[in-house]
Amino acid sequence: MSNNNNLTDIRTLGEFGLISHLTKNFRNRNDSTKLAIGDDAAIVQYEGTPTVISTDLLVEGIHFDLSYVSLKHLGYKSIMVNLSDIYAMNAYPKQVTVSLAISSKFSVEALDSLYEGIELACRYYGVDLIGGDTTTSRMGLLISVTALGTNQEDRIVKRSTAKVGDLIGVSGNLGAAYLGLQILEREKKVWLEDPTMQPQLEEHKYLVERQLKPEARKDIVELFEKLDVIPTAMIDVSDGLSSDLIHVCKQSKVGAHIFEENLPIDKEAYDLAVNEFKISPTTCALNGGEDYELLFCINPNDLSRMDGAENIKMIGKVVEESAGIKIFTPNEKGHDLVAQGWNPLL
Amino acid sequence: MSNNNNLTDIRTLGEFGLISHLTKNFRNRNDSTKLAIGDDAAIVQYEGTPTVISTDLLVEGIHFDLSYVSLKHLGYKSIMVNLSDIYAMNAYPKQVTVSLAISSKFSVEALDSLYEGIELACRYYGVDLIGGDTTTSRMGLLISVTALGTNQEDRIVKRSTAKVGDLIGVSGNLGAAYLGLQILEREKKVWLEDPTMQPQLEEHKYLVERQLKPEARKDIVELFEKLDVIPTAMIDVSDGLSSDLIHVCKQSKVGAHIFEENLPIDKEAYDLAVNEFKISPTTCALNGGEDYELLFCINPNDLSRMDGAENIKMIGKVVEESAGIKIFTPNEKGHDLVAQGWNPLL
Repeated sequence: MSNNNNLTDIRTLGEFGLISHLTKNFRNRNDSTKLAIGDDAAIVQYEGTPTVISTDLLVEGIHFDLSYVSLKHLGYKSIMVNLSDIYAMNAYPKQVTVSLAISSKFSVEALDSLYEGIELACRYYGVDLIGGDTTTSRMGLLISVTALGTNQEDRIVKRSTAKVGDLIGVSGNLGAAYLGLQILEREKKVWLEDPTMQPQLEEHKYLVERQLKPEARKDIVELFEKLDVIPTAMIDVSDGLSSDLIHVCKQSKVGAHIFEENLPIDKEAYDLAVNEFKISPTTCALNGGEDYELLFCINPNDLSRMDGAENIKMIGKVVEESAGIKIFTPNEKGHDLVAQGWNPLL
Repeated sequence: MSNNNNLTDIRTLGEFGLISHLTKNFRNRNDSTKLAIGDDAAIVQYEGTPTVISTDLLVEGIHFDLSYVSLKHLGYKSIMVNLSDIYAMNAYPKQVTVSLAISSKFSVEALDSLYEGIELACRYYGVDLIGGDTTTSRMGLLISVTALGTNQEDRIVKRSTAKVGDLIGVSGNLGAAYLGLQILEREKKVWLEDPTMQPQLEEHKYLVERQLKPEARKDIVELFEKLDVIPTAMIDVSDGLSSDLIHVCKQSKVGAHIFEENLPIDKEAYDLAVNEFKISPTTCALNGGEDYELLFCINPNDLSRMDGAENIKMIGKVVEESAGIKIFTPNEKGHDLVAQGWNPLL
């Protein structure tokens, strides 16, 4: 089982490489399988309207650090990240299953806090908890959530259907959750060196909340419905704008040109990046991840209907594949975007 | 987070107690949620035919021991246990998602073996792998599978609908998987004491296979369809006949009387229990678990249609709740059945 004897280390393939390697011999046999591996969610359709399904694992020490994440926030976020994948299909989540592997260090009261957050998310997003599995682990906490949702067949949006000439938009702002994480990590370090220090989180409440209690963009899916716009492709920004835009481009076999001055960056995030962390706000926006905003493409004919829509920023356009996936800074030619998003296998 | 300071140890509630405690404040809000927590699977129905969903976590060191389970067998079984839950709803599984948390001790080649087993199960049962999530863990291997399936609305069978006067039946035989596990544990012990010893597994190939490569009873669901019988209630025997029959009775608010001489026990299992392990074959059948047989109730008017059906044994009848859940041995009055099935929280 060890990586001696010419065996291949899983880290050499990366998450997406590993998945495509492992699943290369699988064939679909059921007409009801409308979309399988490779999008935010899968689509299943028996007779009637489609079911959209997405699943995520959250592992202690890999995806969350209980030294600064409360169990209530963790419960909320574990639901929210899955709902975000359903919204990214332009569908509405309706049900979730929640499975837990828990070590005996967790008390019933600790799990009560976790489920308080889960219940709050279910209530806020109007979804029902319909099942799950609970077992011990020798290894901290692991949460596995599967979300189910639906929409009319012709309103469901994949990653793979962006067209040359489409416009690229994004909801909300980018990079804030990453900066929230930097603050939490900094305060943890201070606290580890001197446990009498109180963490300084109030000053950057918005950024910390973007990390600890992000929201899925239900409102944007509702907005598309109200404006009678169907995006041509959509994905949620979880790994980082660069990485997620590259997913859309590769699957749609197109390129994309985006413009630095159009990237939506919150002022507080911008200032903190520049003044305190001495990092580029653009880098935070491109590679930070965990924004849970929606990145979408629309037909240019639909642009007028989006006029005046709040929480939406158009950031670029879909181009021929050969024109590359680039970001343009003012007065410069484009730079290739690189997927520097977080790799859960490292 | 520790269990000091008057906090409650999760083990005090048991798996089912913990789940009902944690979910007591949850309310369902969607008409499409037809059946939530508490059965083999949940039922969701948008417009059209229902979707049946079940999910399970398998954790290294808790549910499987890689010192005698091959990764290929593990992959196969991880799919099969979820499909068994879908069949237990009298439905046909169609899709699965598979999520993995893996430590870096696993090579790509090791995961290839796991996925070989997963692919074999998907092929054998005709289901499609439609998604999942892959991440590292610091703690061995964890597999989270969700299965989706369907059937006509009026053919789907819950646990909660057994009626007084119904007959109780079970497929295949009981206790063999438990005895297979005893053999594997015994040979592991021998091997740990003297690594030059070869494990003696050939002699009891059938029993070992019942543990390592159990099958879900697709054939029984097909048989019910062919005979035009719809069970009044059904569950798969995963925790043990006692424990699973008690689930059906509690949820249906009925009692059950079963008869020891009717319990289907394989001759090899019977002989091994009596001669080598000196344990009661009846105890193995009642409490062994992991049989993945189907335990069902039928209306007595349907009995004639089941005449001559292979792989089916009628073992008792549904009685008033006040008459208890009992097993009768020849010439004796009944003994209460007790849920001694395996507790994943211990």
